[in-house]
Amino acid sequence: MRVGILTGGGDCPGLNPAIRGATLRLIRDGHIPIGILQGWKGLVQGLTVPLSEERVDEIIREGGTILGTSRTNPFKNEQDLQRLLDNYHALGFDALIAIGGEDTLGVGARLYAEHHLPVVGVPKTMDNDLGGTDFTFGFDSAVSVAVEALDRLRDTAKSHARIIVLEVMGRHAGWVALYAGIGGGADWILIPEIPVDLNAMCHYLQQVYHGGKHYGLVVVSEGVELPFAQTDQPIVLDDFGHVVLKERAVGSRVARYIEEITGIETRDAVIGHIQRGGPPTVFDRVLATRLGLKAAELVSMEQFGSMTALHGVEVVAVPLTEAVRNLKLVPYDLYEEARQIFQRLVLQPQRSGAV
Amino acid sequence: MRVGILTGGGDCPGLNPAIRGATLRLIRDGHIPIGILQGWKGLVQGLTVPLSEERVDEIIREGGTILGTSRTNPFKNEQDLQRLLDNYHALGFDALIAIGGEDTLGVGARLYAEHHLPVVGVPKTMDNDLGGTDFTFGFDSAVSVAVEALDRLRDTAKSHARIIVLEVMGRHAGWVALYAGIGGGADWILIPEIPVDLNAMCHYLQQVYHGGKHYGLVVVSEGVELPFAQTDQPIVLDDFGHVVLKERAVGSRVARYIEEITGIETRDAVIGHIQRGGPPTVFDRVLATRLGLKAAELVSMEQFGSMTALHGVEVVAVPLTEAVRNLKLVPYDLYEEARQIFQRLVLQPQRSGAV
Amino acid sequence: MRVGILTGGGDCPGLNPAIRGATLRLIRDGHIPIGILQGWKGLVQGLTVPLSEERVDEIIREGGTILGTSRTNPFKNEQDLQRLLDNYHALGFDALIAIGGEDTLGVGARLYAEHHLPVVGVPKTMDNDLGGTDFTFGFDSAVSVAVEALDRLRDTAKSHARIIVLEVMGRHAGWVALYAGIGGGADWILIPEIPVDLNAMCHYLQQVYHGGKHYGLVVVSEGVELPFAQTDQPIVLDDFGHVVLKERAVGSRVARYIEEITGIETRDAVIGHIQRGGPPTVFDRVLATRLGLKAAELVSMEQFGSMTALHGVEVVAVPLTEAVRNLKLVPYDLYEEARQIFQRLVLQPQRSGAV
Amino acid sequence: MRVGILTGGGDCPGLNPAIRGATLRLIRDGHIPIGILQGWKGLVQGLTVPLSEERVDEIIREGGTILGTSRTNPFKNEQDLQRLLDNYHALGFDALIAIGGEDTLGVGARLYAEHHLPVVGVPKTMDNDLGGTDFTFGFDSAVSVAVEALDRLRDTAKSHARIIVLEVMGRHAGWVALYAGIGGGADWILIPEIPVDLNAMCHYLQQVYHGGKHYGLVVVSEGVELPFAQTDQPIVLDDFGHVVLKERAVGSRVARYIEEITGIETRDAVIGHIQRGGPPTVFDRVLATRLGLKAAELVSMEQFGSMTALHGVEVVAVPLTEAVRNLKLVPYDLYEEARQIFQRLVLQPQRSGAV
Repeated sequence: MRVGILTGGGDCPGLNPAIRGATLRLIRDGHIPIGILQGWKGLVQGLTVPLSEERVDEIIREGGTILGTSRTNPFKNEQDLQRLLDNYHALGFDALIAIGGEDTLGVGARLYAEHHLPVVGVPKTMDNDLGGTDFTFGFDSAVSVAVEALDRLRDTAKSHARIIVLEVMGRHAGWVALYAGIGGGADWILIPEIPVDLNAMCHYLQQVYHGGKHYGLVVVSEGVELPFAQTDQPIVLDDFGHVVLKERAVGSRVARYIEEITGIETRDAVIGHIQRGGPPTVFDRVLATRLGLKAAELVSMEQFGSMTALHGVEVVAVPLTEAVRNLKLVPYDLYEEARQIFQRLVLQPQRSGAV
Repeated sequence: MRVGILTGGGDCPGLNPAIRGATLRLIRDGHIPIGILQGWKGLVQGLTVPLSEERVDEIIREGGTILGTSRTNPFKNEQDLQRLLDNYHALGFDALIAIGGEDTLGVGARLYAEHHLPVVGVPKTMDNDLGGTDFTFGFDSAVSVAVEALDRLRDTAKSHARIIVLEVMGRHAGWVALYAGIGGGADWILIPEIPVDLNAMCHYLQQVYHGGKHYGLVVVSEGVELPFAQTDQPIVLDDFGHVVLKERAVGSRVARYIEEITGIETRDAVIGHIQRGGPPTVFDRVLATRLGLKAAELVSMEQFGSMTALHGVEVVAVPLTEAVRNLKLVPYDLYEEARQIFQRLVLQPQRSGAV
Repeated sequence: MRVGILTGGGDCPGLNPAIRGATLRLIRDGHIPIGILQGWKGLVQGLTVPLSEERVDEIIREGGTILGTSRTNPFKNEQDLQRLLDNYHALGFDALIAIGGEDTLGVGARLYAEHHLPVVGVPKTMDNDLGGTDFTFGFDSAVSVAVEALDRLRDTAKSHARIIVLEVMGRHAGWVALYAGIGGGADWILIPEIPVDLNAMCHYLQQVYHGGKHYGLVVVSEGVELPFAQTDQPIVLDDFGHVVLKERAVGSRVARYIEEITGIETRDAVIGHIQRGGPPTVFDRVLATRLGLKAAELVSMEQFGSMTALHGVEVVAVPLTEAVRNLKLVPYDLYEEARQIFQRLVLQPQRSGAV
Repeated sequence: MRVGILTGGGDCPGLNPAIRGATLRLIRDGHIPIGILQGWKGLVQGLTVPLSEERVDEIIREGGTILGTSRTNPFKNEQDLQRLLDNYHALGFDALIAIGGEDTLGVGARLYAEHHLPVVGVPKTMDNDLGGTDFTFGFDSAVSVAVEALDRLRDTAKSHARIIVLEVMGRHAGWVALYAGIGGGADWILIPEIPVDLNAMCHYLQQVYHGGKHYGLVVVSEGVELPFAQTDQPIVLDDFGHVVLKERAVGSRVARYIEEITGIETRDAVIGHIQRGGPPTVFDRVLATRLGLKAAELVSMEQFGSMTALHGVEVVAVPLTEAVRNLKLVPYDLYEEARQIFQRLVLQPQRSGAV
């Protein structure tokens, strides 16, 4: 079989080990792996590259994706879709392995369901919010970068007797913030799933700070909604006179709020794009390798319309639709478990009228 | 309740986060955590230290154990056992949290079963071979150090066109070797659970080497038994004239074997004690924190004779005896899964009479 | 002698090893080292802490400063100055070791010159722009963090076929940008010392991008002045209705400029506070240790009004005034040397009228 | 000009950045860079590979050498030398850039002096013992790996209340041990240049250990000569019955000596080959880039028979013979400077007749 492999969506550590795992197993099973460049866009445009053992052998330690990636969704444009289908046949493909997140796998699911393309998916998201799998690769690497940042910020917070707020990835789900906050020993964690109580947080931080700790660390998901509207939307014109939408920086707003309420000097930091690249952690290397390997096995078994997933210590197949049906959110109980660590003091009752 | 916390056996990354998790939760629940120094030895000798939020707050990023550790087994000596029991009462303990591996938890299980001491266990082993839990903390850190070593050795192996054999921890189980081999992209993995076929390995390495790769990486568990007796046991006298038992270095023997059979220059490396210390990975920080936290909860619930464990994504309680009943070995299927990656070429049939 | 040690200004990796070096040598020479908390502020307020071998032994691997720091300048307030002088005598000090940058050492120089306080300085700045010494500690650590970020951004830039602009520290001098750009293999480096030619940069990036590289990396010092006024100053109101001065983000402006001119998707990243903390690199540990050690030696020799400095491979004493006289800027020749690497293609002549 | 570039001797971090620096500058100057594989052996056998911007652009972050390396010395064999000279002309070379240590540069110096080959050298050694340059690349990376190992060993030494001896590279010079010992906060450092006083060391370690520290770290260069003969040379037969010369393991001998004399449990660790590979530190990336760049410049200026070197903050040219004339040893004064840190207590007088 000629099997196309593509990676879509934002890059993250583990894509290359997954490509490697799928490629090596396909070759071993006698198939011909072919790289499709830049996600679904590459199939629309017919961009391919051969994949061999030599090409993939050492990429297990490399971040990013050797196949390139894009956010192209061929279902947004009838013509793109037709070209994709034409190319699929013209290039002689017998199956596809799509490695990506909700969008990429969603396209795969529709191609399988609506156009009978034999697709197998491999789930990927740094946010860990894809359903159907215990963990996605990229997540452990993202949390590791965040915790390393927290370790560094702790030194500065202590030296300057400050509170520092770190904003991390997580638009819809707070997995990265939660794990980074536990692993980095934060004093408070804000995630999108749990209603924000800024006053309780400020009260707690004050108590901890003045109780002898003299610094504090807060982790906040980028997707947290603050319980008040930003009083004014900044209008920024760039150097060309264009109006620029100021990107949401919830961490910065939280930091200013803490400083205002507590009177303690507070700064914020954002990791941003630095979090995406870099060599995958070992957890992600092993997970991605196993998921890629399993995807190739599913191709060999012609078990299409499925996706590889981690259940406990096993890698299994689940329907491709599971990944895209529901976001996997942080359950309330897990947040409460974490709270027993980060909010390690029982709050003293607040004096009335004051925070 | 006055709750003693101790760490026993070899040190490993995650002990401090586990101490921290248990301590913070105990304080939160209104208990008094007390550190017992140097494992069971500290209870035999009555060595304790107070544990407070301040003392444990920042140790989440520290390797080793702030409580010290030892391999003392009080059941080996009637007098020690009696002193331990006397001290337990004299120091006013109401419960114990024992963090350790097979030996430490085995003592805990007997103290609970035979002497009715209220013990809760937290499992720890870098080798990941304890039963009753999916993973133990220390393992991810150990594998990470091993994979970093493999990444480095790959550079040297390529530059010098050599095969390099890395010997890693794992006396009875090959978990570290298996995960390090997958995550580091090794060309062959030898573990104690699977009968060693050195000739198949040499044949494969030759094929890969001369097929264009021009180097090779092999990972071997320290506990692998080679299929032939060492022809002569070295007798080494040290600088004081004492006979020294030469430590087993299976990696070195494997390297010499490969060189002899394949004619390819082969070297070996051992990580040794460097693998034990160092800051825990995030995976281990979070796992250890959760296991410590849960242990404190079990104390509060007076669920003694139990041990905290990871099942899938949940931290649960299992009987303390489960940890010590059976070694958790690498299952055959998992090794075969790994083989599809490391032995990525299908072996060509050997010419008769030759390797 | 009773010798006060203090750290002032922004925290940076190496402060703790410098404190350690000075402390250990002072004790060895029979003096009594005393920590002054939070820089000059601590002397104004009389905040001290004892320093012993035990306290400092292990801080060689810790970021930040165990003494805390502040930016307090006692010369800004007559009363503060008097309290500082009073405390100096009341606390029985015989000498001071001040570890800090231009501001901290400037205070030290004036205390020595105008008030005859026996001060020895140890230079510190992540920006490496202090005169009188080849390198300051903190610099190698800062560059290392920046290069690690560049390594990560490269993965993402390649995967998405983008240009990424990294803004790094350096208000007045471009040392961090220059070294990070060389060490991280950037395609262009912008520093404050060299007039910015954005069009030449854009032209070059286009040529490299379309010549087959398909991505690009640019490093820019935070202190670079762009050759045009920002067309409009954003007015931002925070959640309390306060007007917030939007911090300069030159990297973001450069990224938007590149995208506008070249048509290539361009993103920016900033390291920010994450760059300050964290364990010092070995270069910084050794340098800081040696500088601290030498400072104690200068105290023993009563060679006050001086500062320790690195000249080649030697640590020597220079007048304290040298550190604060002139900023040490990147010389033109060094930038040109770097340009031979980053601008590795000779630019093809531009077509007239176009970039 | 057609310029051959080769790397010889043991691989070390920085070789790739040096190749990159030379290649990019050569191309910029209009020359044609050609890679010679496996050091001088490649010129003997005529093995070459083209070098382009694309090939070298990203290797700045890679350990090892893309050109491969060997220890072949063509002067050991008349025929080899003749083939080398023949190939030099047959392949149309106009100049050579040789990157390597004493042996590789020694060959280059003789080829220049005796056979008028236009050779420029770039010095490389992890041991930092080459004359004519302040530092060689590879050294900072080697020390960084050693210090990371010490940081890890400290955790274990503390947890188990042990002394741990780390053996590091350095056959003739103690630079790696000295810098690692300072940067890692060791309690004693043994280097080849300074006569070993094991009893003073043991006495000091006992004093520190029992004075409250309860652990200890010692760093020893592999090249240290112990002041007594090993009482018996082990004779080891390998699995094939061959006599194997047991490699010197001075760290292990030192550890056993300490344990015997002090009665404190003592272990040893060796880094070995793991120290050679891995990505270069930023210091080494920048140094290697600058040295490679300068070598290309010397070729353009036809300044043959010279070697690039670091003097202070400048990269300069020195005669190629300087590198190979004298080993650069650790000066006595620098060791004494270090001693003021590692031997931070003044030794109490020993009781007569006892250690």
